[in-house]
Amino acid sequence: MLTYDLDKRKGRTLYEYLYQCIKEDILSGRLITGEKLPSKRELARHLEVSVITVENAYGQLIVEGYIQPVEKKGYYVRPVEGNVKKGGRGKEQVHLQNIRQAGREPEWFLDFTANKVSPEHFPFSVWSRLMRKTLAEQEKGLLEKVDGQGEPKLRKAIADYLYHFRGMDVAPEQIVVGAGAEYLYGLLIQLLGFQKVYALEDPGYKKIGQIYKSYGVDCRHIHLDADGLSMEGLRQSRPDVVHICPSHHYPTGVVMPIKRRQEILKWAGEARGRYVIEDDYDSEFRFSGRPIESLKDIDHWGKVIYMNTFSKTIAPSIRIGYMVLPPHLMEKYQREMGFYSCAVPSIEQYTLAAFISQGYFEQHLNRMRNHYRGKRDQVIDALKKSPLFARSVIREEDAGLHFLLEVDTEKEDSQLVEECGEKGVKIACLSQFYQNPHTGRKHTLLINYSGLDCGRLERGLSILWELL
Amino acid sequence: MLTYDLDKRKGRTLYEYLYQCIKEDILSGRLITGEKLPSKRELARHLEVSVITVENAYGQLIVEGYIQPVEKKGYYVRPVEGNVKKGGRGKEQVHLQNIRQAGREPEWFLDFTANKVSPEHFPFSVWSRLMRKTLAEQEKGLLEKVDGQGEPKLRKAIADYLYHFRGMDVAPEQIVVGAGAEYLYGLLIQLLGFQKVYALEDPGYKKIGQIYKSYGVDCRHIHLDADGLSMEGLRQSRPDVVHICPSHHYPTGVVMPIKRRQEILKWAGEARGRYVIEDDYDSEFRFSGRPIESLKDIDHWGKVIYMNTFSKTIAPSIRIGYMVLPPHLMEKYQREMGFYSCAVPSIEQYTLAAFISQGYFEQHLNRMRNHYRGKRDQVIDALKKSPLFARSVIREEDAGLHFLLEVDTEKEDSQLVEECGEKGVKIACLSQFYQNPHTGRKHTLLINYSGLDCGRLERGLSILWELL
Repeated sequence: MLTYDLDKRKGRTLYEYLYQCIKEDILSGRLITGEKLPSKRELARHLEVSVITVENAYGQLIVEGYIQPVEKKGYYVRPVEGNVKKGGRGKEQVHLQNIRQAGREPEWFLDFTANKVSPEHFPFSVWSRLMRKTLAEQEKGLLEKVDGQGEPKLRKAIADYLYHFRGMDVAPEQIVVGAGAEYLYGLLIQLLGFQKVYALEDPGYKKIGQIYKSYGVDCRHIHLDADGLSMEGLRQSRPDVVHICPSHHYPTGVVMPIKRRQEILKWAGEARGRYVIEDDYDSEFRFSGRPIESLKDIDHWGKVIYMNTFSKTIAPSIRIGYMVLPPHLMEKYQREMGFYSCAVPSIEQYTLAAFISQGYFEQHLNRMRNHYRGKRDQVIDALKKSPLFARSVIREEDAGLHFLLEVDTEKEDSQLVEECGEKGVKIACLSQFYQNPHTGRKHTLLINYSGLDCGRLERGLSILWELL
Repeated sequence: MLTYDLDKRKGRTLYEYLYQCIKEDILSGRLITGEKLPSKRELARHLEVSVITVENAYGQLIVEGYIQPVEKKGYYVRPVEGNVKKGGRGKEQVHLQNIRQAGREPEWFLDFTANKVSPEHFPFSVWSRLMRKTLAEQEKGLLEKVDGQGEPKLRKAIADYLYHFRGMDVAPEQIVVGAGAEYLYGLLIQLLGFQKVYALEDPGYKKIGQIYKSYGVDCRHIHLDADGLSMEGLRQSRPDVVHICPSHHYPTGVVMPIKRRQEILKWAGEARGRYVIEDDYDSEFRFSGRPIESLKDIDHWGKVIYMNTFSKTIAPSIRIGYMVLPPHLMEKYQREMGFYSCAVPSIEQYTLAAFISQGYFEQHLNRMRNHYRGKRDQVIDALKKSPLFARSVIREEDAGLHFLLEVDTEKEDSQLVEECGEKGVKIACLSQFYQNPHTGRKHTLLINYSGLDCGRLERGLSILWELL
């Protein structure tokens, strides 16, 4: 008869412990296939527990396929691959150890590469109030399923914002809200097709290329000339889809002039299935004049997919982006991908909708533009006072959260990066953003100032100067 | 000289309006390539505006590439493709109209297909309190970038939950948090590879197949036998990855017995690159006994990827899921996909972490299990009282949010669905969930009771009975 010491069960219930004991006996081969178990009544009497306890344990073993009941006969052990013991996880544990230790960045004295937003200026109390209000007003409504393209109120708020701030005429029905730009890139590849050839700007934002690569699509890198994406490069690479940042290219800062925009649109119009993805992710931070007109707005053929994110304008932890599809692509999206749920929690969607429609977003942008402009001026002032200034030229300082600094040095870029790093100053050079072998644009540093600690700037710049 | 009626500018600023007017003249060809514009001073005097206004307008036109300054000479119109007029959007507008009208579901008298959670039982006040507390405590911390795999506190809470509730021994470092199961499926395809052959259960949850299709991967549907995924079918289909729901298969309700689990693990162990995705999305709702042991827990070879979501247990609008990767896949993830940001907003992550670690999640699950059991009993009682009961058999009523009802009828399933629909009763048949031509399992309705309006049940069942 099966005998177990039920006092050893610790916190577990009797039936759970009994189930566990019998299961282990089956797996270890102490109970073999076809063996008959005692009846519930017998085992209960033997172990001095209630019949219900045995019944529950047997019940669980039946459901999980360890034993089977045979009518009017009793319970029998089912076939199971014997002796599957725990253990042998040693190697896996070592892996885990490595994982735990990986991915720690050293502490930098000064970091010119951190292209991050300044959370301390976000009107968090307003956001928090709107979120609390959403919680109170919407209540259980927040738990209901949201429209797959995004909460209509949010799409309306985005369309209004695009109209007033960006001069774009977009219907809320053309908008798809998603969990950040990275997520939307993935949706777009699914929508446009895995067989398509995609082209990116070279140099460019590294992560965009990583995502296309992760999706396994054919992705080509096209060089830029003074006006942005090279038309000659475009014709040679023969892509179907180009992904560009015409309003403010990262990292070169180039604003694509109207002629080149028209040329790219013309290229897109020449064949079915050609599209332009207009990635507008930091167009909000121009320090003079109005925002650059969007490519989408001069697209009369339905060839431009406009996308933007709130990662730069609010915070990266918000994870909301959106894209505007031309109507025929929107139809395709609804037909082929309409089954997708919207990947953004509803409370964020309602809160953001209120934040935009009540004017807080615009206020925040204005404040941030002033803040970043002030920060840029501070950094440029410090540069001008530094001996470095005599050996450098500042470029593209009118927009975005970085500018370029061409320095006069004999050193290779890689050497400069390494030597600065050894002194605690992290720098990035334009040349590091290229995918293809290239000529020119050496010795050009990216000065990302948005997250820079200005108190350390003087010392940091003199370290840089000493190393040139 | 350029002459514009500045009174027509409406709400716009002077410089913006002037910029717009000159731009339109360039695009329409009224100003031609190479034409010289008046000097800023001249134009300002002519239009009776300040020089600053003209300077700002010219500045914007320069940035956008419409005009160029030539040193000591003045401003010249740059080459632009002429006469690109707005218009010709008629067709696109029609598309938009269609989009607006699409996707409206009729109102059903009774809907047996709505596999939805009951938001009215969610402890929303607790959730709301935890969220407010998170807002107050974390403050600006909520805006900082979150760990790409998910906030460590949340991963720790999930690991603890899996240990206590599911008996699984998992390290927080093995967990990747994502914006719902749909999002995680996509990450997994990227991780395991687009060239791999994937296999799904047939019948199965339709959306899973749609996602694999949307990612363009080779996806095969394997039939089930009484114990779940057929081993014979598995050997014939020759997939690399199988995606299964062993704890509670949807829609058949089959719990995979231990022998079949071992066979599948053995199959996975026979070749490098073979994996099993264990989709455990409603394992929490078993009405008797303890939760079914996970496949992951008997996997000693690192072949099982466990995944689950909070869509069913909390609400679909929460959009948080997670997966547990074997350590060597976790390393690969960090190496190849570590650039991805976590797609869930940080406030949801902190709130959910508190909800789980403070015991509310377990309480809620217990309450919901009771609630759904009660609901199931109510539906079964109503069935027993209905004349339908004499011509039907209830199956798989022990778990999940639905059971099966085999009905005795001569009608084809499609006819039954259609006729019921005409009477306002929406039903789904098991046969609709199959991808491959199949035999058997006809006339089996899915009774999804979680969102059912019980007050209308009597009438709904008699409509069904009349139509059999």
